This record gives sequence, C-alpha cells and structure tokens, in this order.
Amino acid sequence: MRAAVMRSSQLVVDTIPDPVPHEGEVLVKTLACGICGSDLHALKHAAKLVEVAKETGAPFQLDLTRDVVMGHEFCAEVIDYGPNTSAAVRPGDRVVSMPMLFRGGRIEGVGYSNEAPGGYGELMTLSAALVLPVPNGLTTEHAALTEPMAVGVHAVAKSRLEAHDAPLVIGCGPVGLAVIAALKLKGVEPIVAADFSPKRRALAERMGAHIVLDPAQRPAVAAFVEAANMRPAVIFECVGVPGILHDIMRAAPVGSRVVVAGVCMEDDRIKPMLGINKELSIQFVLGYTPEEFAGTLQHIAEGRIDVAPLVTGRVGVEGVPGAFETLARPDHHAKILVEPWRA
Amino acid sequence: MRAAVMRSSQLVVDTIPDPVPHEGEVLVKTLACGICGSDLHALKHAAKLVEVAKETGAPFQLDLTRDVVMGHEFCAEVIDYGPNTSAAVRPGDRVVSMPMLFRGGRIEGVGYSNEAPGGYGELMTLSAALVLPVPNGLTTEHAALTEPMAVGVHAVAKSRLEAHDAPLVIGCGPVGLAVIAALKLKGVEPIVAADFSPKRRALAERMGAHIVLDPAQRPAVAAFVEAANMRPAVIFECVGVPGILHDIMRAAPVGSRVVVAGVCMEDDRIKPMLGINKELSIQFVLGYTPEEFAGTLQHIAEGRIDVAPLVTGRVGVEGVPGAFETLARPDHHAKILVEPWRA
Repeated sequence: MRAAVMRSSQLVVDTIPDPVPHEGEVLVKTLACGICGSDLHALKHAAKLVEVAKETGAPFQLDLTRDVVMGHEFCAEVIDYGPNTSAAVRPGDRVVSMPMLFRGGRIEGVGYSNEAPGGYGELMTLSAALVLPVPNGLTTEHAALTEPMAVGVHAVAKSRLEAHDAPLVIGCGPVGLAVIAALKLKGVEPIVAADFSPKRRALAERMGAHIVLDPAQRPAVAAFVEAANMRPAVIFECVGVPGILHDIMRAAPVGSRVVVAGVCMEDDRIKPMLGINKELSIQFVLGYTPEEFAGTLQHIAEGRIDVAPLVTGRVGVEGVPGAFETLARPDHHAKILVEPWRA
Repeated sequence: MRAAVMRSSQLVVDTIPDPVPHEGEVLVKTLACGICGSDLHALKHAAKLVEVAKETGAPFQLDLTRDVVMGHEFCAEVIDYGPNTSAAVRPGDRVVSMPMLFRGGRIEGVGYSNEAPGGYGELMTLSAALVLPVPNGLTTEHAALTEPMAVGVHAVAKSRLEAHDAPLVIGCGPVGLAVIAALKLKGVEPIVAADFSPKRRALAERMGAHIVLDPAQRPAVAAFVEAANMRPAVIFECVGVPGILHDIMRAAPVGSRVVVAGVCMEDDRIKPMLGINKELSIQFVLGYTPEEFAGTLQHIAEGRIDVAPLVTGRVGVEGVPGAFETLARPDHHAKILVEPWRA
C-alpha cells in the first residue's frame, strides 16, 4: 500500500507491505484521517516519546529503526476479516475506532506502533471489538473527527467542572477547540478562550466560546479573571510547549484547577511556590474512555457537536509531508484530513 | 524583648522593641513555639520567598532589609489588649491562633512579616478575632503543635481521600507526620510512609503508619505499589526539595493523585509526559482553613491526635540559632520547641 511513513525521523511517502489482519481483527481501507499535533511532536521528539513510554509502561513502545505509519483520527471502510473473526460490522460498512489494537496479549497504539499502521496509509487493521459503525447520515470526514473531539470530552470530564466554575481555554488549536465544544455541551457560561491567531479565535467562537481573547493585546489570564468575576477558575492548557505551564501557574487566580491537555514532550520548568501559595491543582489528561469515545461519536452524529468548521484542508497520501510543514505554522489551519485514496 | 531575629539572612539573638497591640489585637507572651522547616527554608531562600509572594499576592511581602521575627506554631498567654478591644479571652488565658494578623486593612503573616513578630520572641500581638483558648488539661507544648498538625489535616482534606484509596507519605518530617496523623483520623488502611531516617520511621509508626519503608533499601513507590494492591494511589509529597516531584511522577502508578505538602522554594524541573501518560494529578496545598485549625486543636485536646512523640527538643530564645543548625541535619529531631522565657 501507499503510506506516509516515519522513517529515521523523516516523513516519506513509500509503497510498503499491506497489513494483514490477525484473529480478532478487521482489515479496513482508510477513508479519512486527521493530522494531529501530537504527530508533529512525535516526528520531532520520537526518541523522547519512546523513552517516556518505556518509563511509564504506555503503549507507545516502538522501534524507531523500523517504519511507523502514524495517523490515529480516522474513519475507515471494512474490507475483510482476520481468521476466526466475527464482527458486528460487514464489508462496506464505515467505522471509527479508538486507536488501539489488541494483538498477541499486547496493546498497540494504532499510528504509534511498528505493528499497527495508522491512517496515513491506505489500509489498517483494527480490533473487531473496538470498531463502531458510523451512524447513517454522518459524513466520513465528520466521523473522522470523533477521536480529537473525544479528547475534549475527556479533558472536561477530568476537570470535575461544576456549574459555577469559570473555564478558560488557552490555545485554540484542535485540542482547545475540542475542549470548547465539550464545554458547550455542559452548558457552562461564559466559555473564555485565548489564542494569538485571529483565524483560530474565529473558530473558537464558532465552536461555542462566548469570549475570545488575544494574548497579544492583554495577558489572557488577567482578562479572564475579570470575566470570571470571582468564580472558581478551571484553566485548560491546550498549547503543549515548555513554559506555558509556568505562565499559567504565575497568572492563575488562587485555587485554580489547571487541566493539562496540551502535549509537551520536552522537559519543563516550574516554580512550585506559585502552586503552593495559590493551592493550584494540575490534572494531566490523556485520551478518553471507550464510553467517552462512543458518546462523542453520538454527539457528532446528532449535531450536538458541530465539527464542520474544523476541516480546513484535505490532502492525498502524497501530500502528507507537505501538510506537516503547513501545520508547523498553524495559523491558517485547524484540521487537515488525509484521504489516502484521493488522486 | 529578647528575640531570635532574621537580619540580613542571618539568625541573631537580640533585644528589640516590644510589639504594641493595635485596636482589635491582644498582646501575648510566647510560651512555646515550634521551629518549622519552612523557617529553615525561608532563612536560606528569603529573597525567593518575597519574590514569589509578590507574584502571587500572598501575605508574605516583607522587607528583608528590616528585622523579621519568625515562628508561627505557638501557644501563648494573654497579657494585655489593644485600645477599644474586646476579646473572649482574658489575661492569664492560654491561647493558640492561626498565624495571621489583620492590621490596617492588610493581612500580615505572623512570623513572616516586619509588623507581626512571631514566636521566636518573648512577645507577640495577635488578632483578637483569631485567638482560641486552649482547653483545660491540654499542655502548652501540645497546644503549640496545633498549627503543624492542622497542615496535615488540610493536606488530607484537599486530597479528596476515599475509603478505597491507598495513601503513601513520602518524607516523615513534621509535615509527613502530621499527614500520617490526619490519615489515621480518617481510618484509612494501610497508611504507608517512607523516610531514610530510622528515627523518623519509628515516629511515623507511633503517629499511625501501618507500613514504613526505607527508600535506601528499595524505591519507596515501588514497594508501596505492592502494598496498595491496585487501589488508587494518593501520594503525599512531604519533602520539599527539587527533584522529588519528578521522582514521584516517574514512579507513581497510573492515575495517582499527588498532594504536594512539602515546600520547595527553588525552581524545579518536571517531565510533563510522565504526568500525561499516567494522567496524574498534582494538588499543591498550603496552610488550613480556620475550621481545620480549630478542629485540629480539638483533636489534640481530646486525644484523637497524639502529639507527644513529636517534641524532641526544647530551647530558650538564645538557643534558636543552634536549633536551626541542628535541624539542618534532621535525622535526630521531629519538633524542637522554642520557649523564649526559658532560662
């Protein structure tokens, strides 16, 4: 199959062997797969990712001397089963899945594994037990956004948000926008969001933010504190670069809860006394539960989360390396979808 | 009065002017005051403390070119009132108080202020509204331990501990021992505690730890994970030195809640990916509420918290600088009490 391959820390397009479904797996054709900021990070910090995965037992223990096909935000079409496999879906059905593959007693991260190629290639194998049929009427590209939207739903769930809390979303890339959508589901007001990019601030408003802030005009947290009007602050860090956590800890009001949804793969420096003096809490979050993933698909299918504004570009498999370069300057895009079979 | 004074980052004993009670204040004679590890830190990192206080609006905004009398864990005897002041206590009554002084629309931290000398001097002024009478029968030195014990009660309250959670206390200095006492109040089992010092491990057992670990023999968190038997881990960081938070984040099981009760005044370095991959939460804590402070006094008075094992030394005011040196090698002590009027 044709695939965009991470090889020696470079992204190259090549023809590689088709994946073969094992028992309990379905073979699928990738219809659309979003490019995730984590993949840009992973390409840059692959060795770090593997090192931390080993330290933490996370299922991203890949061999960087071998090919990796990334891509974990996909909608696909079932084309075949592995041996002795029954599945609730049939060839021709469109499916989404959490990007996990159970194989040989291990959990492989689809798109972060040598064994389980992700959606930047034409074919994938998925665990039959995890695939969810796409409800009739939901477009393929909207279904492909289930995964990134589930990240927002999970982050908000982990924040233990109460009705009287005042949320601030720092960074309106795909993670921040997903958090905004999930906050909107909760009915909390006002949702305050901050980003340097006018395009992203406009997207934040379309996703449900009531107040958008430009940190270039005024420090976002200071402006937010005014809007929050003494209500407890819940600050979603959706940027994921070194230093941002310190900036938030410095500016946050007393008693703030900080939810770290941005993925910072580098070491970071904090001043514990800022946390101590203000009794801050920091909740790191990752992924979602199966229930949150399935629930997010339903939210999108039933229009409670409108993902239409998020798709800002489409490329074929040959266009993936170029799309990665484009996304390194993220001002102009939210989500670029890879459609591997696109001409 | 005679007092141990922080002057140009040194601790010196000198005769300084007696404090004068303002309206709404009582003048008290210090009977006993515990030496807190934070004061050792503060002497070493005074400039840092002031800098962070300014950044966070914390009530420790002192002028280091002027004298500061530290000491915030005290029991005292009322000797006089300020003008136009009524108080529920009378001269001769023994009292404890949260170390806060309301004066001129400001909150001064008693013992961390140029205006409100603390218990390392013979006399203090306290806010009449905050003093609590020591119940009959409670010794002065046990009453003086209300403040450090309240720190443990508060840390456990902020941990949102559930009956099925498994607590681990890292560091069995006064803060760790207070946390152990507060965990014992909650009836949670087993309480696991770790410290390099055999003396401190013995104290941990006396305060209520069921399992004590020597990190020199085996990494504490690894040994704890076995004892916890898959129950959710709540890890109390009671050491407060750079690097310990990283060590805990690296070793903690998935989903652990880390409560930072140790006071690290220096910058620190973390790897966010450890927190992200394991969805850790970090709750920084400071102090206690007025209810927790008053409740702790009652717990001590009624024997639910037994503080007797904690007092390991007593000095007069002239002995404070020496006691600070002794406590810099903390193996042999838990709490040294300053009795300023002691010969």
